[in-house]
Amino acid sequence: MGMIGGGPGSLIGAVHRLAAERDGYIELVAGVFSQDFEKTKKLGEELGIDPSRLYPDYIAMFKEELYKPEGERLDIISIVTPNHLHFEQAKLALESKFHVVCDKPLTVTHQQAAELERISKEFRKEFAVTYTYTGYPMVKEARAMVQNGELGEVRKVMVEYVQGWLSKEIESEGHKQASWRTDPSKSGKVGALGDIGVHAFNLVEYVCDTKVEEVCTELNTTIASRSLEDDNNSFIHLDNGAKGTLISSQVCIGEENNLSMRIYGDKASLEWRQMESEKLIIRYSDRPMKVLKAGTDQLSEIAQQNVRLPGGHPEGFNEAFANIYRNFAKTLITKRNGKQPTQVDLDFPKAEDGVRGMLFIEKALESNASGQKWVSLKQPELIN
Amino acid sequence: MGMIGGGPGSLIGAVHRLAAERDGYIELVAGVFSQDFEKTKKLGEELGIDPSRLYPDYIAMFKEELYKPEGERLDIISIVTPNHLHFEQAKLALESKFHVVCDKPLTVTHQQAAELERISKEFRKEFAVTYTYTGYPMVKEARAMVQNGELGEVRKVMVEYVQGWLSKEIESEGHKQASWRTDPSKSGKVGALGDIGVHAFNLVEYVCDTKVEEVCTELNTTIASRSLEDDNNSFIHLDNGAKGTLISSQVCIGEENNLSMRIYGDKASLEWRQMESEKLIIRYSDRPMKVLKAGTDQLSEIAQQNVRLPGGHPEGFNEAFANIYRNFAKTLITKRNGKQPTQVDLDFPKAEDGVRGMLFIEKALESNASGQKWVSLKQPELIN
Amino acid sequence: MGMIGGGPGSLIGAVHRLAAERDGYIELVAGVFSQDFEKTKKLGEELGIDPSRLYPDYIAMFKEELYKPEGERLDIISIVTPNHLHFEQAKLALESKFHVVCDKPLTVTHQQAAELERISKEFRKEFAVTYTYTGYPMVKEARAMVQNGELGEVRKVMVEYVQGWLSKEIESEGHKQASWRTDPSKSGKVGALGDIGVHAFNLVEYVCDTKVEEVCTELNTTIASRSLEDDNNSFIHLDNGAKGTLISSQVCIGEENNLSMRIYGDKASLEWRQMESEKLIIRYSDRPMKVLKAGTDQLSEIAQQNVRLPGGHPEGFNEAFANIYRNFAKTLITKRNGKQPTQVDLDFPKAEDGVRGMLFIEKALESNASGQKWVSLKQPELIN
Amino acid sequence: MGMIGGGPGSLIGAVHRLAAERDGYIELVAGVFSQDFEKTKKLGEELGIDPSRLYPDYIAMFKEELYKPEGERLDIISIVTPNHLHFEQAKLALESKFHVVCDKPLTVTHQQAAELERISKEFRKEFAVTYTYTGYPMVKEARAMVQNGELGEVRKVMVEYVQGWLSKEIESEGHKQASWRTDPSKSGKVGALGDIGVHAFNLVEYVCDTKVEEVCTELNTTIASRSLEDDNNSFIHLDNGAKGTLISSQVCIGEENNLSMRIYGDKASLEWRQMESEKLIIRYSDRPMKVLKAGTDQLSEIAQQNVRLPGGHPEGFNEAFANIYRNFAKTLITKRNGKQPTQVDLDFPKAEDGVRGMLFIEKALESNASGQKWVSLKQPELIN
Repeated sequence: MGMIGGGPGSLIGAVHRLAAERDGYIELVAGVFSQDFEKTKKLGEELGIDPSRLYPDYIAMFKEELYKPEGERLDIISIVTPNHLHFEQAKLALESKFHVVCDKPLTVTHQQAAELERISKEFRKEFAVTYTYTGYPMVKEARAMVQNGELGEVRKVMVEYVQGWLSKEIESEGHKQASWRTDPSKSGKVGALGDIGVHAFNLVEYVCDTKVEEVCTELNTTIASRSLEDDNNSFIHLDNGAKGTLISSQVCIGEENNLSMRIYGDKASLEWRQMESEKLIIRYSDRPMKVLKAGTDQLSEIAQQNVRLPGGHPEGFNEAFANIYRNFAKTLITKRNGKQPTQVDLDFPKAEDGVRGMLFIEKALESNASGQKWVSLKQPELIN
Repeated sequence: MGMIGGGPGSLIGAVHRLAAERDGYIELVAGVFSQDFEKTKKLGEELGIDPSRLYPDYIAMFKEELYKPEGERLDIISIVTPNHLHFEQAKLALESKFHVVCDKPLTVTHQQAAELERISKEFRKEFAVTYTYTGYPMVKEARAMVQNGELGEVRKVMVEYVQGWLSKEIESEGHKQASWRTDPSKSGKVGALGDIGVHAFNLVEYVCDTKVEEVCTELNTTIASRSLEDDNNSFIHLDNGAKGTLISSQVCIGEENNLSMRIYGDKASLEWRQMESEKLIIRYSDRPMKVLKAGTDQLSEIAQQNVRLPGGHPEGFNEAFANIYRNFAKTLITKRNGKQPTQVDLDFPKAEDGVRGMLFIEKALESNASGQKWVSLKQPELIN
Repeated sequence: MGMIGGGPGSLIGAVHRLAAERDGYIELVAGVFSQDFEKTKKLGEELGIDPSRLYPDYIAMFKEELYKPEGERLDIISIVTPNHLHFEQAKLALESKFHVVCDKPLTVTHQQAAELERISKEFRKEFAVTYTYTGYPMVKEARAMVQNGELGEVRKVMVEYVQGWLSKEIESEGHKQASWRTDPSKSGKVGALGDIGVHAFNLVEYVCDTKVEEVCTELNTTIASRSLEDDNNSFIHLDNGAKGTLISSQVCIGEENNLSMRIYGDKASLEWRQMESEKLIIRYSDRPMKVLKAGTDQLSEIAQQNVRLPGGHPEGFNEAFANIYRNFAKTLITKRNGKQPTQVDLDFPKAEDGVRGMLFIEKALESNASGQKWVSLKQPELIN
Repeated sequence: MGMIGGGPGSLIGAVHRLAAERDGYIELVAGVFSQDFEKTKKLGEELGIDPSRLYPDYIAMFKEELYKPEGERLDIISIVTPNHLHFEQAKLALESKFHVVCDKPLTVTHQQAAELERISKEFRKEFAVTYTYTGYPMVKEARAMVQNGELGEVRKVMVEYVQGWLSKEIESEGHKQASWRTDPSKSGKVGALGDIGVHAFNLVEYVCDTKVEEVCTELNTTIASRSLEDDNNSFIHLDNGAKGTLISSQVCIGEENNLSMRIYGDKASLEWRQMESEKLIIRYSDRPMKVLKAGTDQLSEIAQQNVRLPGGHPEGFNEAFANIYRNFAKTLITKRNGKQPTQVDLDFPKAEDGVRGMLFIEKALESNASGQKWVSLKQPELIN
């Protein structure tokens, strides 16, 4: 695997590298970690990468690697750059016949995202989008429960992703991540919605195994000097008729990384909270509340396959992230061996999920601009 | 005190009686507990009430009691009947110069509620509306913190009141409370919104010490056969510019009585959950999370005055309810003695809070009917 | 009912009065609330008690009331005085043919307690000891589960009762309750063990429905100036072979009223915490954790009978206390009517439980004095 | 680094490898993973290890590696074999001038452990013992708080480590780990005490930064057919005069990996639970409860240095484990560079901690055999 971005000081770059190499399926052997080639070389050395595979820019990397013989050339490009760079990098990677792992939000516009999906299909390359939170085993358990009908018909959904780190105007105090997240030239048309709202959206569609049909959204910019929104309240309608709310905000002072989801069916309901990621609470009208725990024997196949330690030995964010890379890698390997990947292997967020995220962003912006009109996420033009 | 309603088998009647007599300020000495006089007489006997003060109907009670000499006549009428009866009973009680405690929602229309408020002022009678949940000491602490500026400027509010008891169509199976709650002829124009939504609304206005300025509401009727809505998602805007959501539902299967509130300021935030009513969580951007506990020394005057037991000796719903009656009674007594009640004594929900609840209901219905347009709760006509 | 003790400013007196009158079975009609008759008269007036039934001392009260005709005389004496007074007051009450409710610890010595039990049997009078915590519905549920074999054979027990209020030497700063609790002339031979240790002991024997067979105890006096112990660590062996620990302390700084219990059988285990009194957690080796909630339909008959509100409407300490009085009163009434009380009615702590508590205290003292030898609680002399 | 043990299917072997390589300081380059050389070769290949450095036995590995030139030879031997093999392997590793990381309990007897400590000093080799749980950042925060006097004088300690996985006789059903854990020929003289009791013991001594002075222990063998104890209740006395309890058990049915600790000082107390490892609760007598969270800014230097992700992104067991390896590696590197390691780097469990664990085991056995006499852990012979 070769990486673009994730240079010195990048937290998410380190998270990607750790996740990729975690299970022994992927090895990081090349990279363009920074626009500054010296920084790339320095980090590459620290990471023990062959200096000949450290490149000054991604075009050079693709060109060099493209013509290496099978077995020596890169299989995968991991893209960990700011949002506005994803499109051209991922596009060229696919066209250069690399499989791609790309951070979210996938692109800056929905159209770009759809284009990437199209290209990945055209070139028959796998494309993973690192929506971390659907990598958690108890989220997979939640989806399995919905699919198995254990909740009955889903009626109501409440999803929230609230953080507090942008509750003060830290972008003007030299906070690096705050600066690019709140800068439209790097983040695109949205701030918090692209950073965390899309995670919440992906969580809903993944767990409910259905699509969001339409949204009614209010976006707020709490800090007056900011160009991008930092707070979102949305009503949502799902394809199956369920109603709900999707709230995301980065100005909820004191909140750390509080993503949570409650799903109410006509038979039972579930609750999951990322900060207590190993619990899944199930409630009934006529039976006591049940608390499922990661690492125990009482879970579905898919949840068990995405846990590495026995119950009571906390796993967390890094393992959820690693699950994406692992399932992605196992899919690649299985296909290379001419076999059909299992549902467990195929269970990672793909280009189409990235496209959905971008669609949500655009439609939420549209609803907000209209003064909270309902806007459909259906795409008739794609039916053909 | 005399009571109307709360006959044999009425849970809320028993709660009112217990709350009223709890602190020794109020004694139940008369009543019309049921439309069936025999039932009134039977319950009256059980409660040890002088048979001569058990009446066949409330008009008889008012008439008889009205002409008794001061000291012997009733001071207070407590109204615990279904919603559609509140207006005429409360109106006549006020006109008969009784102080009134009335269950919520106050009336069936906003106009009726406003009329009651007007009459209570005209006749200089105290009027309490039993919004139970603002009776909790930690809710009072929350309000004190907002008032003292400990949260800074309030920016975002998330209030929810979710229950699951109407998630199945139990009204058709002879469930008594479900039957009248879902029957427009008894509940008025709304179901869940009147039963629990108004509590959530009262909680927001009380704790934030400001008004909800406008709402954008989606009401859902989850069970097809039902005439009244059982689920509500609302966006709200507060007078001070804060944004937020107010969600209430009775079809959240497995939920018991899950009322919760999170308020985010620019300095700190707070979280309160009714089912863990004795905790109040405060979060900061730069200090560890703090958990305040009822019954401890570290609370404001008002919270301490509304607790009866030391920390760690759980109090709950009954005590919150009793706080309303106690503060109401202390206000009456203090005024009767020609003194000015303290802020602590005056801290009970009043007719104006009942009016606000009815206004919210009407505006939420209007917003829903318009397909989620924003509807203002400002009332220019009342300025004169 | 007449009360001895519980004068102005006594928290526990108010708790007893509220609990006694809560369910309409008992009425407080007489009292000796204080050694100072003026104080008794003043409080009596506030409580609306007929002045002729306020007495200067308990002997006077018993004498006067004893000769009143059936129906006019007191049935029950409630004793809410410091420990060292319980014995003589309760003894005379029984001999005067009153039923008795007495606070815990029952007496100052085990012998006194056994004497009270004997007298109550001789005079056929009911005798309740207010071990509050076994009045909680979920504690009753726990006992029912053990009795029904849902945990299998009980193997291990962990009970703790930790508070922090004596972690500083507040008795020398005029703290009234701290003063008598730490004064051997008023509390007897033990401090914290008598105040809270006996609650933990009662909880074990009640829930496990078996006896503690032997103890191995270390008592500590953390504050050097104190005459009585303020901290206890005990190993316990139960009659059925189970092993465990019983820890109680009043120097656990920051703890409020933290009584908890975990019981491990060979099929399942349970956990209950007084400060979250409405939950009962059940754990299995092969099934998900279950959380039972007070007020829901899924509980045993006995738990359901000891709850007054639906799930999610928090009840607490006052209701647990009231359950003792209510069940005691229902037993009296049923017996008076010549019927056999049900198991639900009979479910209140009795003189024999008070005796067990005193026995535990004496044996724990003996074990501690011996340098942590095991001391048996078996009483061969009682077999005859 | 070379590894002994941790062959195919070994969970703890994988945990060690992941932890060792996590931060880029250590690379696994050699190994004897199994007694079956074929298995070693197979796993070695999977792990990408040069086949020439896969060895049939550890003596061969040491011999070969010993004579390689500096920079090519192994620095560290990681020992992940069953307990009874640790001593001879670690001894020879030290004598062959390798630094050693060894799993716990360090050896089978206290004498062996002391011998290893002596040898490591003689040969000036670093020696880490993988007591995982003191690797958690919030445990380090707890220790820093005790050291800084934030709790005041420590008075009372309550430590527990309870699991349920041995609550049924699974060793007779072919459960591999259960088989060797309950087999004296592989585990030594103790079962659960060596497996988990020593963790609890290490936690106490680490956080309180003092020694356990004496113990009074009851060991139980709950499953009759078992040769080794599976349950422990101990009283402990610390050097500073604090009293407490240390409970460990593997027959607490339904418990996962429930290690917890409460420490009460005269100023404040703390509570930590491994299964919610990122929280540290601080309680005061006169201030609200505080909840410290891993990954936030409000922690001590040492806690912040042992966290890799921002607050709210759960880390867990693997990161705690990695902290041991990382600090160990940084100490080695710093010393190799002729510098003095910082306190942060030196913060990993060492041979002396392994010795303490073995001493605890022996003294606990002695106390139990004596019928719960107090047994001292002081070692006068070591003073010279």
